[in-house]
Amino acid sequence: MTGSLIVVGTGPGKADLMTPATAAALERATDLVGYGPYLDRIPVTRTDQCRHASDNRVELDRARHALSLAASGRQVVVVSGGDPGVFAMASAVFEAIEAGEPGWRTLDIRVEPGVTAMLAAAAEVGAPLGGDFCAISLSDNLKAWTTVERRLKAAAEGDFVIALYNPASKARPHQLGQAFDLLRAIKAAGTPVLFVRAAGTPDAKVVTTTLAAADGALADMRTLVIVGASATRQIGRWIYTPRGEPGTRS
Amino acid sequence: MTGSLIVVGTGPGKADLMTPATAAALERATDLVGYGPYLDRIPVTRTDQCRHASDNRVELDRARHALSLAASGRQVVVVSGGDPGVFAMASAVFEAIEAGEPGWRTLDIRVEPGVTAMLAAAAEVGAPLGGDFCAISLSDNLKAWTTVERRLKAAAEGDFVIALYNPASKARPHQLGQAFDLLRAIKAAGTPVLFVRAAGTPDAKVVTTTLAAADGALADMRTLVIVGASATRQIGRWIYTPRGEPGTRS
Repeated sequence: MTGSLIVVGTGPGKADLMTPATAAALERATDLVGYGPYLDRIPVTRTDQCRHASDNRVELDRARHALSLAASGRQVVVVSGGDPGVFAMASAVFEAIEAGEPGWRTLDIRVEPGVTAMLAAAAEVGAPLGGDFCAISLSDNLKAWTTVERRLKAAAEGDFVIALYNPASKARPHQLGQAFDLLRAIKAAGTPVLFVRAAGTPDAKVVTTTLAAADGALADMRTLVIVGASATRQIGRWIYTPRGEPGTRS
Repeated sequence: MTGSLIVVGTGPGKADLMTPATAAALERATDLVGYGPYLDRIPVTRTDQCRHASDNRVELDRARHALSLAASGRQVVVVSGGDPGVFAMASAVFEAIEAGEPGWRTLDIRVEPGVTAMLAAAAEVGAPLGGDFCAISLSDNLKAWTTVERRLKAAAEGDFVIALYNPASKARPHQLGQAFDLLRAIKAAGTPVLFVRAAGTPDAKVVTTTLAAADGALADMRTLVIVGASATRQIGRWIYTPRGEPGTRS
């Protein structure tokens, strides 16, 4: 039997935010490979399905293991949260292919899109991503902090809305504060800043503040931070970014 | 009966990329409001549901109509494609609330996230959004072209992957070419450029080229264009952006 590998994202957390295409892939798989807590979200529907849970931060090992299983003829699904192509497992799979067995390049591989965290976070508060926006991972596990700073500066100078993934962890408690300091030097003090924890789950919690008052200690690994553009505003309990600029209408 | 308004996105096109939460909202609605072709994608499951189809480019009128219906007690769903918060109807609804009837501010309103076009486009070709990225709408219907240019420049200088929404239309045939010209002055000639048409539908079609060779005439309103970062590369038939930088590993 010919093996296959599908990389999926289960969405932000609630089962009804996972696409039917992803649910069908999970149902058909002989093997699920992923970070333990993501696998735990998936209901067991078959007794003949193997689950290969691994720790966080071993993405390349996990990708190689999944590719080996597919090469041996298994129907493998690699499980990410959110969307698999946004700071998640899809890139790790292609990195592993590039550095790995030549036979892996001809495997039957597919990526299934999903609802990434910033979309769920935005929906919780209104429409803060309604204008042009950037997504930046603050983690410097895999890139230099100077690269993060360069991108924050460019995003601020371009007046983008900025979504910050991986804003903080126990190993990196101070970087979000440094990011806010950098942004405060360029963006207005009253710029809306949103801390959305566990977006798209029943535990979702939103803190709305301003760039001047934003405290990096409010974020953890389950938080998505959104920093507004100059046009981002509050209306009642909602935060949104208009689609355009005043005075420019077709 | 108290009215409500839910803003949803039906995803890129295939029914199995619409979230179950959105499908449930569509099923429960008394009134669907949206651009005709998006409404046409939704199967009729109830005979007592009113469909209010409108033309493209009348988003604010459509939002006001939806808010009026909700204020009169109807269960209204406003239908976008993709994700409703990304260059779609959610912002138009909040704009209409800000400028509209005071009573609209206390309506029961919710936004349901969906799979936005760039995620479906990325999944078709691999994982080009695997690093930090920006999303920019090239339409200057609602913002000045100088703002688009400023953001393209910032995105290139920050070495972001760049997803271009609304890259071309009959009224704007030359802007994508101008955008490529601007990017060519900053980014390497060999940067991968992807034209993904009808991503996430059975008609999906991908053209892979380089920034030096990219021709704006290859795009239409159903195309999502992705311009790589310096690290974006091809491996076999796949295009991906690694998660980090060479030599930086935790």
